[in-house]
Amino acid sequence: MKRLEHKITFEPTGRQVYALPGTILLEAAAQAGLIVQTPCGGQGQCGKCRVKIVSGQASACPPTANCRSAMSAAEVEQGYRLACQARVQGDLVVEVPVSSLFESQQQILVHASGAPVELSPVISKHFVELAAPSQADARSDVERLRAAIQPVDFDPVGVRMLRLLPGVLRRQGFRGTAVIVDGDLIDFETGDTTDKCYGVAVDIGTTTLVGTLVHLKTGLDLGVEARINPQTSYGDDVVSRIRKCREEAKGLAQLQRVIIGAVNDIVDELVRAAGIDRTHIYEIAMAGNTTMQQILCGIDPSALGELPFVPAFTDVPQLNASDLGLDINPYGKVFIFPQIGGFVGGDTVAGIIASRLDCENETVIFVDIGTNGEIVLAHQGQLIATSVAAGPAFEGARISCGMRAVNGAIEKVVMNGDLAINVIGNTRPAGLCGSGLIDAVAELLRLGLLDPTGRLRTPAEIPAGAPPTLRKRLIKQNGHVDFLLAHKTETVSGESLILTQRDIRELQLASGAIRAGISILLEMQALRSADLKRVLLAGAFGNFIRRNHARRIGLLPPIPCDRIRFIGNASSLGAKRALLSKAEKLSAAKIARTVRHVDLSLAPEFQAAFSAAMLFPENDPGLSVEVG
Amino acid sequence: MKRLEHKITFEPTGRQVYALPGTILLEAAAQAGLIVQTPCGGQGQCGKCRVKIVSGQASACPPTANCRSAMSAAEVEQGYRLACQARVQGDLVVEVPVSSLFESQQQILVHASGAPVELSPVISKHFVELAAPSQADARSDVERLRAAIQPVDFDPVGVRMLRLLPGVLRRQGFRGTAVIVDGDLIDFETGDTTDKCYGVAVDIGTTTLVGTLVHLKTGLDLGVEARINPQTSYGDDVVSRIRKCREEAKGLAQLQRVIIGAVNDIVDELVRAAGIDRTHIYEIAMAGNTTMQQILCGIDPSALGELPFVPAFTDVPQLNASDLGLDINPYGKVFIFPQIGGFVGGDTVAGIIASRLDCENETVIFVDIGTNGEIVLAHQGQLIATSVAAGPAFEGARISCGMRAVNGAIEKVVMNGDLAINVIGNTRPAGLCGSGLIDAVAELLRLGLLDPTGRLRTPAEIPAGAPPTLRKRLIKQNGHVDFLLAHKTETVSGESLILTQRDIRELQLASGAIRAGISILLEMQALRSADLKRVLLAGAFGNFIRRNHARRIGLLPPIPCDRIRFIGNASSLGAKRALLSKAEKLSAAKIARTVRHVDLSLAPEFQAAFSAAMLFPENDPGLSVEVG
Repeated sequence: MKRLEHKITFEPTGRQVYALPGTILLEAAAQAGLIVQTPCGGQGQCGKCRVKIVSGQASACPPTANCRSAMSAAEVEQGYRLACQARVQGDLVVEVPVSSLFESQQQILVHASGAPVELSPVISKHFVELAAPSQADARSDVERLRAAIQPVDFDPVGVRMLRLLPGVLRRQGFRGTAVIVDGDLIDFETGDTTDKCYGVAVDIGTTTLVGTLVHLKTGLDLGVEARINPQTSYGDDVVSRIRKCREEAKGLAQLQRVIIGAVNDIVDELVRAAGIDRTHIYEIAMAGNTTMQQILCGIDPSALGELPFVPAFTDVPQLNASDLGLDINPYGKVFIFPQIGGFVGGDTVAGIIASRLDCENETVIFVDIGTNGEIVLAHQGQLIATSVAAGPAFEGARISCGMRAVNGAIEKVVMNGDLAINVIGNTRPAGLCGSGLIDAVAELLRLGLLDPTGRLRTPAEIPAGAPPTLRKRLIKQNGHVDFLLAHKTETVSGESLILTQRDIRELQLASGAIRAGISILLEMQALRSADLKRVLLAGAFGNFIRRNHARRIGLLPPIPCDRIRFIGNASSLGAKRALLSKAEKLSAAKIARTVRHVDLSLAPEFQAAFSAAMLFPENDPGLSVEVG
Repeated sequence: MKRLEHKITFEPTGRQVYALPGTILLEAAAQAGLIVQTPCGGQGQCGKCRVKIVSGQASACPPTANCRSAMSAAEVEQGYRLACQARVQGDLVVEVPVSSLFESQQQILVHASGAPVELSPVISKHFVELAAPSQADARSDVERLRAAIQPVDFDPVGVRMLRLLPGVLRRQGFRGTAVIVDGDLIDFETGDTTDKCYGVAVDIGTTTLVGTLVHLKTGLDLGVEARINPQTSYGDDVVSRIRKCREEAKGLAQLQRVIIGAVNDIVDELVRAAGIDRTHIYEIAMAGNTTMQQILCGIDPSALGELPFVPAFTDVPQLNASDLGLDINPYGKVFIFPQIGGFVGGDTVAGIIASRLDCENETVIFVDIGTNGEIVLAHQGQLIATSVAAGPAFEGARISCGMRAVNGAIEKVVMNGDLAINVIGNTRPAGLCGSGLIDAVAELLRLGLLDPTGRLRTPAEIPAGAPPTLRKRLIKQNGHVDFLLAHKTETVSGESLILTQRDIRELQLASGAIRAGISILLEMQALRSADLKRVLLAGAFGNFIRRNHARRIGLLPPIPCDRIRFIGNASSLGAKRALLSKAEKLSAAKIARTVRHVDLSLAPEFQAAFSAAMLFPENDPGLSVEVG
């Protein structure tokens, strides 16, 4: 049974999402990739999460008592609401002030005015109208141009531009736009093209690729595109990709070719949708795990497939777009994130940048959920990082009716009386994405349809109070029980959507691996879950997972939900920050040098922790009242 | 008539030259490219020019009275001589202590022990035997290598080496030689190849190319090769080359192709003769005038062919050997000298470095004689530079029997009674090189066979005292007189060698242009010839020209010969210094920024000075006694 959703548009980015009635604005914003800050843990007390309703019926988002106590009557009248309290009851246009965003987003987003906020990309464009040479001023072409754009400099000058410059300057009457990328003069364009200055940030996941087109003059996102990593057809996980490189002479070249092709597909679509010229994309920043990054660069990952899992590099390699065959400006740059170790790669470094964990003084854990789960613990100013093989369940793969979090995916499941689902794009359901999977399993656990070992109970075994409508969805066959999510009359394909016992086992493996990783890092620092001031949850696994549900299935440790914060696709966000700021590139290199790498394949206690974490908790370990 | 020469071998370089009996050691050394210092002006007083006879008969180089007064009896007994005094009387092996060399050479040559002297090339090679990765030490391949060669660093790492490194390290058991060029890791070679580290310095003349193979670990020259610049077939001077680039679509490509081909020929021969592997040549430093350098780099020189003669660049462009198709290590670097202006190029910068004119506090003029004559005046710590079109006469071109200073060239002419000549390589004469041309004209002037307007007198017109044997060499035909240098029975070809009236006119043009340039620079600083503390004479125009003869024909101003110093092929020497020292590369860039460029094409007084300088002086303007 599907409930009608409301369309929520966020300004100034213009991003739109669909949300079930009753969804708090905070969650709807997070679906749109806007992470609103909640220092009080979403208790409606601090007033930091205020947003403004700028369009919509009066009844579409009524103020709550907390809204009225945290803000003045005039503010409430003007449309201000606390995002952690106010709920969606109709279509809305919501303005999110930059001051209400999570701090890692603040710096790279913009005021509604469009004024840039602390942007310092390595790319700069300079429109110049140079005086033509004369006997009194016979400076060289390079000197003439250099003087016009100082204090920005380019040095040394590559021979390619030296060959172009004398002709292009004279043909264009010494007038045009110089393009400088990290001290390198790469082009001199006709006319004033200073506003046409773009970059692309790409999260290179083992299963999913996400590209974001960024306007480097404003920091605004101009589009987001995702694709399945086409390497998945050669194996789900990094181990199978490494094996292909080790065993087949052309394995590496083949894997590199398909991933570059997919990134180029993403760029094609971003360029098309935004209506820009691809030669105006001057930099592409890419973050992925060590294996993904090495394959992307054409670096043999074989040594990552055997003890002691040695990466080729840890610092920032130097690449041009043409080195990789990327379809942006051919003299544009490629920023590949530095790597921490064999299994803790550039995506983790990007995540640390996005979450600003490198400046963290409290005890905080960062969990990036993907096919590999990356976990970083900040404690007493030190960072330790590890990764675990979670498998692609959170991204919808290896799940019988699994799919990515795109249109048609069930992304939310609520079981009150009967089953209620939220489908991305407000369509008939086509499959189940990661957040929907977690919801479904958490609700089945809560209602006793699933036992803590992960076995779906038969109708005869379930508690007496379980709603009959849900009981009827249990399908017993071949000695085990599956769960009917959507009847064939309700789906896009006309086939039923079924959550199988096997799907639940996949989720147990994925969740258990991540939880075991968290437990080991805490043990290494002699910490308990309660010592964690915050859990920062990142991932491209779905728009939004429910914190209480993530905790219910044991994915996250038993701490109050108000300590759990979503920071979205941290890898993409970190890549975008690197695009927008040279300082972030330097801090990435520093992070890669200073974070301590823990190889869990060497930790005998990991297997024990993993086995223990495979079991679901008996009861919800949460103590506080949940929102959402 | 040819006199028998003696073979002189200089240690520790092993260079050999042939010298006429009576040649002072200073000149013989200069023929070998070793510029011995003479602070006292070659008066035999300061004792700074001492060299040691290590092999040869007692009578082959007797000590002079000055040798005995400047040194102890024991030293003279051990074979020490003053190079400015002692004369060649037989075959000799002479050791030149580094302390006796001209200061610009000292720093880049070595003690006989082979110990390097202040070498700091941008290339370094490091043999490493790395510990294989282990669980306790799973650093990345790059980190492992970096730690082993510190404090030398390479950063960032290019993707090409990142692709090679994992495989090559493991195939070679983590053992081999890292090659770092200017912070760039370009190779990891099998075994210990640290001693195999070479560079090539190339003087790119309009007419002549000279390449020197240099061992970067010792600073020693391993070979020198010269070629005619094959662009001469498209025109003698830079103007004709620029015109070809302006007027023909493929002109630039054609000129670039042939010069690169010629440089590769030189490299081929240097590699063959020295028995080295060309992949062990990691850098090539090239110095030429602005037009030659731009064509070499494939940069259109058209703007150099019209007012206001604008060069494309003045700073150091960034090139790899593969950018130009140079047959050295394909990832080796190319250092192209920075340029001062449209007609004062990298060769002048190289010459300033070779002569250390950038540190000069006295009033000194530097004259580099080639197809373009480059002139730099140092006065009160400031440098002003200009160039003049001398034409290729000094390099043997446009002279009817002209040739380069190679085997068979008459390089010295003496007229006492009859004509005596010195032929390079001790063979029959095949032609006349620049120094021989100057000698011949100076001697003809001295004896009155040539009048100051440059006209060869008829036998009837010449002074009564002129030797009859010389008188017979005057050949009157078609209304003018030519001079017989060698009868057809004496030559290689069986054809007579004749110095024609027209040849003398060519020399007048060349000499007059250079002298006019010198005069204008002196006038600009309100200086007279007598104010010059030194004239530094450079050029690849022949092994050695006689100072008194250069002054006799008016090429140099009327100052005492002891103020005239030879510094050899300064462009080659400067290029070599840049190869051997990163600091010299930086000072080259500084020189290009700070030297004042004087464009004589804009100076109306130049034409007047040129006309005046075309006339030969009535008498030798020299005042002091000459040696050599």
